[in-house]
Order: sequence, then structure tokens, then C-alpha cells
Amino acid sequence: MAQLKYEHIQQEACEANLQLPKLGLVLFTFGNVSAVDRALAVFAIKPSGVPYDELTPAKMVIVDFDANVVEGTLRASSDTKTHAVLYKHWMNIGGIVHTHSTYATAWAQAQRDIPIFGTTHADHNTVDIPCAAPMSDEMIQGDYEYETGFQIINCLKERGLNYEEVEMLLVGNHAPFTWGKSAAKAVYNSAVLESIAHMACLTEKINNTAPRLKDSLIKKHFERKHGSNSYYGQ
Amino acid sequence: MAQLKYEHIQQEACEANLQLPKLGLVLFTFGNVSAVDRALAVFAIKPSGVPYDELTPAKMVIVDFDANVVEGTLRASSDTKTHAVLYKHWMNIGGIVHTHSTYATAWAQAQRDIPIFGTTHADHNTVDIPCAAPMSDEMIQGDYEYETGFQIINCLKERGLNYEEVEMLLVGNHAPFTWGKSAAKAVYNSAVLESIAHMACLTEKINNTAPRLKDSLIKKHFERKHGSNSYYGQ
Amino acid sequence: MAQLKYEHIQQEACEANLQLPKLGLVLFTFGNVSAVDRALAVFAIKPSGVPYDELTPAKMVIVDFDANVVEGTLRASSDTKTHAVLYKHWMNIGGIVHTHSTYATAWAQAQRDIPIFGTTHADHNTVDIPCAAPMSDEMIQGDYEYETGFQIINCLKERGLNYEEVEMLLVGNHAPFTWGKSAAKAVYNSAVLESIAHMACLTEKINNTAPRLKDSLIKKHFERKHGSNSYYGQ
Amino acid sequence: MAQLKYEHIQQEACEANLQLPKLGLVLFTFGNVSAVDRALAVFAIKPSGVPYDELTPAKMVIVDFDANVVEGTLRASSDTKTHAVLYKHWMNIGGIVHTHSTYATAWAQAQRDIPIFGTTHADHNTVDIPCAAPMSDEMIQGDYEYETGFQIINCLKERGLNYEEVEMLLVGNHAPFTWGKSAAKAVYNSAVLESIAHMACLTEKINNTAPRLKDSLIKKHFERKHGSNSYYGQ
Repeated sequence: MAQLKYEHIQQEACEANLQLPKLGLVLFTFGNVSAVDRALAVFAIKPSGVPYDELTPAKMVIVDFDANVVEGTLRASSDTKTHAVLYKHWMNIGGIVHTHSTYATAWAQAQRDIPIFGTTHADHNTVDIPCAAPMSDEMIQGDYEYETGFQIINCLKERGLNYEEVEMLLVGNHAPFTWGKSAAKAVYNSAVLESIAHMACLTEKINNTAPRLKDSLIKKHFERKHGSNSYYGQ
Repeated sequence: MAQLKYEHIQQEACEANLQLPKLGLVLFTFGNVSAVDRALAVFAIKPSGVPYDELTPAKMVIVDFDANVVEGTLRASSDTKTHAVLYKHWMNIGGIVHTHSTYATAWAQAQRDIPIFGTTHADHNTVDIPCAAPMSDEMIQGDYEYETGFQIINCLKERGLNYEEVEMLLVGNHAPFTWGKSAAKAVYNSAVLESIAHMACLTEKINNTAPRLKDSLIKKHFERKHGSNSYYGQ
Repeated sequence: MAQLKYEHIQQEACEANLQLPKLGLVLFTFGNVSAVDRALAVFAIKPSGVPYDELTPAKMVIVDFDANVVEGTLRASSDTKTHAVLYKHWMNIGGIVHTHSTYATAWAQAQRDIPIFGTTHADHNTVDIPCAAPMSDEMIQGDYEYETGFQIINCLKERGLNYEEVEMLLVGNHAPFTWGKSAAKAVYNSAVLESIAHMACLTEKINNTAPRLKDSLIKKHFERKHGSNSYYGQ
Repeated sequence: MAQLKYEHIQQEACEANLQLPKLGLVLFTFGNVSAVDRALAVFAIKPSGVPYDELTPAKMVIVDFDANVVEGTLRASSDTKTHAVLYKHWMNIGGIVHTHSTYATAWAQAQRDIPIFGTTHADHNTVDIPCAAPMSDEMIQGDYEYETGFQIINCLKERGLNYEEVEMLLVGNHAPFTWGKSAAKAVYNSAVLESIAHMACLTEKINNTAPRLKDSLIKKHFERKHGSNSYYGQ
């Protein structure tokens, strides 16, 4: 049966989507998660506009890396092409999340990178969270969601950043995208980003000349969790 | 039986009212929703000052478009005349909501339109959320709630806006009103407005020279959800 | 039995105290409510430092208007004398609440009256919420909680305000006190005050020259709910 | 059986850790609590990176004051050495908490002491909440978590403060640490600190020249709860 072939990523995508409202990252249907199967070269993604409490694994739409629907009766998320582009170009990601979470979106609307102010940030990234420029009129009037994927890819490229190290980004005037080894990790990154965005906003309010974190501390905290000698977790 | 005649809008209005506390839009009884039946030319509205957890469909008061009570033993919401005026003049709305939700009310108190800063806003409106001027002393001392309806209608008219496209507005010094094709859609709009109001407040804090969204992006996002070629939802 | 004599106010005070955590107005035990019986000239008040989830009516301490414990095995709230002074001088109040709710306390710490910016405020008060000056060293080193009661009474007196019209006040550097016809009404006032304090804080952030509400609108809204021709509620 | 020997502190540490998400002080696993047994000269601490809803007393790791694991199959919290240093040098503490709670962390990132603005603060401390300087590169590149403990101890020492009176501190660029007679008291202090940090942030926003609390009021409130003649609680 065709259906069972994709059951594992439908299950993974469904569970990850259900985490978004639990973590306070979405209002109504304003967010979507996908999970990929690299061998089959397809991903499972949330159907468009369906409330989270009505989601089931079987409703997840199966799409290939050119954004063609492979299986599913519902229309896929309107952001599907963005997911497809990222999966196609970034070989080592397993899941992608897009939300309009309050604080991260406010930074995107303000068109500012989120400065690295503390160890909570450094535990996850060694650089400011990049805010890609708003897209050009040409891109917007063209294949918009497809181009959104390239805006993300090119922003990292221009800054010399690696998608395996920096797993979160703001699209200027729009909202955050995060990714990771799995859909669950991508959701985790969305929640971390929202927390970092909230704290950074408060930090500037408390001290409008607050300096960025110094390099030694950035390096130390990131390596605690991610270096070859990391000693966080089990 | 007279009662059964209105049961469907009483049910619709009751369910929609119960969404307000669930969505965090009201403290105590500070909000009300109505649902209309165009054929019968009446609407069902929340009774005044009754706690949400005591609401039942049968308690919804039936009122005509001149604000006369047609059926119901409880006193109708003190804002009933505002609802009546809007239903009378706007033929195509099915539901109306009034709340004092925190962030939208703060913008109303600040007497400022909410600038369109991002795609969350553009997904729902192509313009800044209008803040109508505080009402004149004459209107306040006259038939206040009736005049509140005209203040809303005239604000849209003066700005050349269509109530079928812009379904939310702030009354200066007071609070938000939203409407829509149904009571449920009007409630949805209230929650969206509160989220937009929150994000806009943060955006200005993070970047006090944040620019408004550019036209190409406004057009694109609104059309994704609302244009003739919309591709959001099922 | 002596115990049954006070059961009704113990019940009223207990229920009202339990509302504080439900309404998000207290952390741990940082708040207390009392309920009075005018005929018996005593009030029931929360025992000091007892967690809300351990409260029962029988644990409420019965105190007279000179702050003498009449019945009860637990130590009464450390703020008991403030309650006693207010009951003794204000003949028509039935309940008192003291909390350290976040936004109202922030205004108290900022030593500012809360400006009347909108109709949410005017629905409950016609004036700015008064912030009494921090107490003098003499009062602090004297009978502190007793003097706190006089600080509240004198603040209203100096401003020509009536405790039956203005049922909420901030003590500078400290926190809010509210009162009302019943303990439940006093709790309602605490929640309203917190909401007004939050909105006013946001209003100034959105527009740092936001004007106070004009007199005609203040008068209209207050009379809707409180005047002889009020038409709010059932 | 070896296991039963440590059961009481494992139980205490587990229960205290479970309070952190309930009090809204942690996202995912970003926090840890330990509880000490002075006679046995060991403490029980949260295992690293284990979600709170999977914690059981048996999973708590037993560690001595030189940070050697005495019992336990899981890896101890990455902050274990900081706990060990504090227990070794401060004879009279029974529990320690580290979180990245939002408001307290924002002050740490802003590298500012939290000014004592009101009685909520004075009920718990007579001084501004100290923010230790960010650590030196030498300390960071050395035995980082061990040195974090000394940064805390030295900050108090330099300011002439006693760890039995001041039970909370921010490490600059990092986050808060709190302690107390028991693990439960240390958790209580973390929640109080977060509330104080939130209120102080708002106070400065409402009045950017808000003065610190005067000495008479600091003394009075602290003594109400902590002096030899304290009269708060049972």
C-alpha cells in the first residue's frame, strides 16, 4: 500500500505540528512543519489552513523536492515551495518549521538581526540570528514562496554561514524559519528562537547600550553543547 | 414556537461569545459578540454583564436593526445599538465583535492607526488598521452607542475603505470592533487584530524607524489569502 | 457555637482569596482578602503566609476593627491592621484586597498616578488612579501597617475623592489596595486595576504624548455603569 | 542498600526540579536544582538534558563537593561544578537553582544590578540584586563551571554581602543563580527574583527616573519577614 510507505514522516510531521500550539508559537493555523525522507526524496507537510486540533498523520501531504504533490487529498501548506527548495539544497536537514511567533516576528518586522547578548543564545548559535533583507519586487511578483527559499539560502551564503550550524533565520518583514536534523529539532529551534528574541528585546530596553557577548564566552557555551568535547545531555 | 425561530443565531452567537475568554481577549464580561439572520432582519447578542461561563444560547437576546428587542428576558449588551447600526448599513456582514483586548485597546488609547509592518498584517489587511477619532461631545452626549456605529462607518468612508475588505477598526480612546461574514469570522478577526497590535508595538520598540511594508509584499500576501487566485486553506 | 457565627464571612473571604491566583494577581502568598460583617463589627481575613491551595473557610482569622483577634488559631495576615483601619473609617465597604500584582505594583514603584487613557478606565473610575506618596519615616518606624491605612484614607481625603466612588489606590513604593461593597467586588476591582495598569503602560509606549480622556467621555462611560440611569448589567 | 542512603535528597531535588516548569521559569531543560545532605557531604542534582516530565528521584545524580559522581548512571547537569563550589564554601545552604528565566536573564544580559524599587523586593533583600561582572577570558577558558562558582562567591565578598542574607545573584551575560536553606526555598527565590526583575523593568519604563526605595522602608519590610521580631507567616 502506497499509504504506509510515507506513514513514518506523516507521523513525525503531525506530532511536530502539534507541538507548535503547545509551545505557544502559533495563533490559529499560522505555522507549519514538515519532515523529510531522504531515501524517498519526499517530505510530509501540514495541509493549508487546517486547525491543529483536526490534524492527523493521514492528512499530512506528501510532496517531492520540486514541490509536486505525490500523495494526499488536501492542499499542501501555502509555504510548501519554500520547504521544497530548502530540502533540495540542504542535504542534511530533516525538518523545517515556519511560524509567526510574536517576538521573532517583531524582530523580522523591525528588519534587524537579533544580537547575541547572552549564553542562552550562545548555547545555540555563535552569531547574531540573521535577518534576511525583504525580498525584491521581482522575487515577490515571481514565484514568491519558491524565491523565499532562495532568499534564506542566499542570506546564509552571503554571510558565510553554514546551515548545519545556524538553524534559524528571520525573513525581513515576514517571520522566522527554522530547521534541523529532524522535525522535532526544528520545532525545538523555533521555541528557542522565540525565547532568545524575547530576552534580546528586554535586554535592549534595560540597557540600550548592552554589548554583544564576548568571543570567549560564545565559544565556550557553544562547545559545551555542540563541540567534539560537548558535555551537555546524555 | 417563537423560540426555535432564532435558535440558529442564538447558538452561533453563544458559541462565538464563548471563544472570547478562550482566546484571552476579555477580562470578566468586557466583550460581546452578535450573529445576524438577514432574512429575519434580526441579530442575537450577548446579554449585558452576564459572565461567559453562565451563557447559554437561550440567554442571547434577539434584536432588530433599529435596536428594538424582539425576544429575550435579559437586558441586551449595552453596545447593542452599535451592532444594530452596523448591521443596518453593512448588508454583507454576518457577525460583530467588540472587546477591550489589551494591545488593540492600548493602540486605541494612544489614538494611532496600527502601521502595517509585516506579512501577518498583510495576510488580513492591505492598509494600516484605522483608528477612528475620539467621538465629538455632541455624539457622546447624544445617543452614544448609536453614534459609535456611525463613527465606525464614517471613518471607513472618509478613508475610502470598504467594510468587506477591512474588517477591523479601533475607536479612539475606546477599543476595537471587528466584523465578518459570520460571528466566528468576526471573533477570528479580533484575535488576529490583538496579535497584530502586539507585534506592531514590539516592532517599534526594537526599531523606532521601522518602515511600513512595501506595496508589492502587501499585495502578494493579501492575494494569497483573499484574491481570486488565492491558494491558502482548503 | 461561636464558630458558626462567623461562617458566612469566613466563607466569603476564603472564596475571594481563592480568586486571586485564578486571576493571575498573586505569586505564592503575596496577597490577602478580607470580608466584613458590619453588625458583628468583625472581619474575616487570610492567615499569614498560608498557600492559597491550603486555605479553608475555617482557617480565616476573625478580627475586630481595632485589629484584635476575636477567633482563630492561625496568625492573621501581616496587613491586618491596614484592613482594620479602613473598615473602621469607611462605613460602607464590605471587602478589601491587597496584592502585589505586576503592573499595578510597577506603577506604585514608579510613584505615578495611572492616567485615565480610555473607556476601560472610565467604566470604573472618573479620575486617575491615585498613587499615595511613600510613607514618612515616622509612620514606617511607628505602627507601620496601621499607618498604611491612614496613608490610604488621607490620600483620598487630600484629593477630595470619595471611597465609595474610587475603590482602588496605589501606595507609593509598595503596591495596590482595592475595596468594594463585598470581598468579591474588591477582588474584581483588583483585576480591573491590573488590566488598566497594563494598558496604560502600553499606551504611553505607543504614544508618549497620549492625552488623557476628555471629560464628556469619562462622564458618559462612568454613568453607563454607575449613574442613576445606568444601563449595564442585569 | 546504597540507593536508599540518598533517597531523601533525590526526592527533594526531584520535587524541586519539577517546580521549575510549573512556575514558568524554564523552557525545555534550561534549568537545574540540587539538594544537599551536609552529614553525607553530597548533593543530588538533575541529570543533564533530561526533560522535566521524565524526571524521577532515582535519576538524580549524587555528587560530592569536589564534583565527583558518587552514584548515578546518568551524566550530571553541566552546571554541577558550580553547585559543588557553592556547597563547599557556603556551609549553611541546603539547595541551589540555576535557570534562564526570561526577565532575570535579560537583566544579566544587560549587565545591570536590579535596583530595589519597592517592598516586594525589600520583603526578600535589602540591597539591589547583584549582577556579577562577566567572567574573564582566563576563567572561561579554564575550568568554566568551577570558576562560575567563584565568580558568584567573589561578587558577594567584594560587595560585603552575606550569602545567608542575599540568596540570589545574576552572572553577567549569563543568567540567575539562587540558593537557600532547602531546594524548595531556592526555587521560591528563583520565582521571586523573576517577579522582581519583571516589575523593575516595568518601573523604569513607567518612570525613567524612579528612585530607589528609601532605607526606612527597606528595613521595615525586610524585618517583617526576616528580623528577630518577624511577624509574617505561621
